[in-house]
Amino acid sequence: MDNAARIEQALERSVSLVGKRQCPPKLINAVRYAVFPGGARVRPQLTMAVAAACEEGDSPLVDGAAAAIELLHCASLVHDDLPCFDDADLRRGKASVHSLYGEEIAVLVGDALIVQAFQSIAESCGENPQYLPELITCVAGSVGMKGGIVAGQAWESEDVVDVKEYHCAKTGSLFVGAVSAGALAVGSDPQPWRQLGSKIGEAYQLADDLLDALGTEEEGGKPVGQDASNCRPNAVASLGFQGAVDRLNKTVGEAVSAIPDCKGANGLSSLIAAQAKRLVPAKAATQAA
Amino acid sequence: MDNAARIEQALERSVSLVGKRQCPPKLINAVRYAVFPGGARVRPQLTMAVAAACEEGDSPLVDGAAAAIELLHCASLVHDDLPCFDDADLRRGKASVHSLYGEEIAVLVGDALIVQAFQSIAESCGENPQYLPELITCVAGSVGMKGGIVAGQAWESEDVVDVKEYHCAKTGSLFVGAVSAGALAVGSDPQPWRQLGSKIGEAYQLADDLLDALGTEEEGGKPVGQDASNCRPNAVASLGFQGAVDRLNKTVGEAVSAIPDCKGANGLSSLIAAQAKRLVPAKAATQAA
Repeated sequence: MDNAARIEQALERSVSLVGKRQCPPKLINAVRYAVFPGGARVRPQLTMAVAAACEEGDSPLVDGAAAAIELLHCASLVHDDLPCFDDADLRRGKASVHSLYGEEIAVLVGDALIVQAFQSIAESCGENPQYLPELITCVAGSVGMKGGIVAGQAWESEDVVDVKEYHCAKTGSLFVGAVSAGALAVGSDPQPWRQLGSKIGEAYQLADDLLDALGTEEEGGKPVGQDASNCRPNAVASLGFQGAVDRLNKTVGEAVSAIPDCKGANGLSSLIAAQAKRLVPAKAATQAA
Repeated sequence: MDNAARIEQALERSVSLVGKRQCPPKLINAVRYAVFPGGARVRPQLTMAVAAACEEGDSPLVDGAAAAIELLHCASLVHDDLPCFDDADLRRGKASVHSLYGEEIAVLVGDALIVQAFQSIAESCGENPQYLPELITCVAGSVGMKGGIVAGQAWESEDVVDVKEYHCAKTGSLFVGAVSAGALAVGSDPQPWRQLGSKIGEAYQLADDLLDALGTEEEGGKPVGQDASNCRPNAVASLGFQGAVDRLNKTVGEAVSAIPDCKGANGLSSLIAAQAKRLVPAKAATQAA
C-alpha cells in the first residue's frame, strides 16, 4: 500500500465509530467533513517519509502518528476559520465547517480532532509503548501553547509580535512536529530532521503569503487577501513580489539541503520539489518565469 | 504532601513555561486564569484516591493523570461558556475567560488545555510507559467524540436526544475517566471502578440540575436558570423538587455502595459524602430538611 492510501486508512480508522457509545450525528458528520477529502496531506506524508528513511519496514505507530499530525492540522483549520478568527466561509474549496454546521459544532469538531489525535497515537503503539512519552510530548509541543499552533494563533491577539516567532509557531511548528514524529515513531533521534521541518515550514509560510497576496480563491480553496484585511504580516507586503519569490526558492533549496544523509533522501527531495511547485500560485509562477 | 497540594503542584508544573519558546502573554495569563484558583478539584481527587486504593506509594504518573483530568475539565468549562454555547459571563464566581480575554483567546485556552492534558500524562510516565496506551485511550475516551464530553456537548445541537446518553457523555464520562485513570496510572484494572465514577457523575448531574433550578449565582459561581432558558433537560423540571432530591440521595448511596472492597474505602466514602453535602444548594437542603 502506498503512503497516500496508508494515510487515508489511518485517518478513517481514527474517526470511525466503534463500540457501543453513540456519537451525535451532526458531530460525526462534521468531523468527517473536516477530514475528508483532505488536501495534499503533506504533513503526514513527511512523517511517513522520515520514518521510512530512519528504518526499514512499516509500523502501525508510524501510521498513527501520521494520522495524528493530520488530525491536528485539520483541527487548526476548523478553529482558524471560526467567526472570531478568520471568519472564512471557504476551506479546501468547499464551505468551511462553521458555515455549514454552525459555530457550536465547529468548536466541538476542533476539540474532538485534537483529542482523537492523541488517541490515534496511543491506540497504535502496539509493542512500542516506550516510544510514546517522547512522541506525544513532541506532537503536543508542536500544537500547544509553548511554541505550537495555539501559540501562533494567539500571537494575533497581541499588540507587539515577533514575526519570526509568530510564523515558527503558527506554521513551522507542525512541520517540525511532522518530521520529528516520523523519527520518534520508529525510535530514532528526531534532532537531525528538525531543520528540514523548519525550512519546509518557512517555505510554506512564504507560499501561503504569495497565495494570499496574488492567488485566486480557486487555487487556494480558501478566501484570499486575508492578511491585508486582518493586518497580518505578509512576505509580499514586506519583501515585494520578486523578493518573496526569491526567498521562497532559496528556502526550498535550504530545505532540500537540510535532508540528512539517508536512504530515502532522493524520495524526500522529490516530495519537497513537487510540493514547492504545487504551492506557488499560477500568477506568481508566470510573473517569476 | 496531601493530595490537594499535589494536585495544585502538578497543575502548576503543567502550565508553567519552561524552555526557550515564548508564549503569547494573553494566552498564558488566560490559561492560568482558567486553571487557578480551581473549584474543589473533585475529579483529580478521585483519580488520586483510586490510585492510592489500588497501590501503595506515590507515582508521578498519578499526579500527571490527575492534572490531565482537571485540565480537561477546565477546558470544557472555558469552551462551554463561549457565546455560541452558554454565553456565560460568570464561572467559579469570577468573569468567564471569554468575557475577560475575548472569544479568540477563550477558544485557544480550551485547545491549549486539551493538548496540555495529554502532554502532562506523557511527561510524567517515568519508568512506566507501558501504562500510557490504556491510560491515554481512557482519558481521551472520556472527553472525545465517542461518548465523552465533546459528544455530550454536541447532543445539545441535535433535535432528538437520548437524555441518559447526553448526561453520561456530558457529565458522567469524565468522572468515569477520573476513577479509571487512577487505576490505570498504577497499572491496575479500571473495571471495578467504573460504576463508582458513573454513579458520582449521575449525582453531580442531579446536584447541578438542583443548583440551576434552585440555587443562587453565589452558590454555584455561575449563572443559574440556564437549563430552562436553553431548553435543556433538568431533573427538577422532570421529577419535581422532592423527586430530584430523593434521586440525588439515592444516587449518592449507590455511589458509596459501588466502592470496591479496598484499603482506601473509608476515605473514599468520606470524600463522596463531603462532596454530596457541598453540592446541594442551601435552599434545596433547607426545603428537604
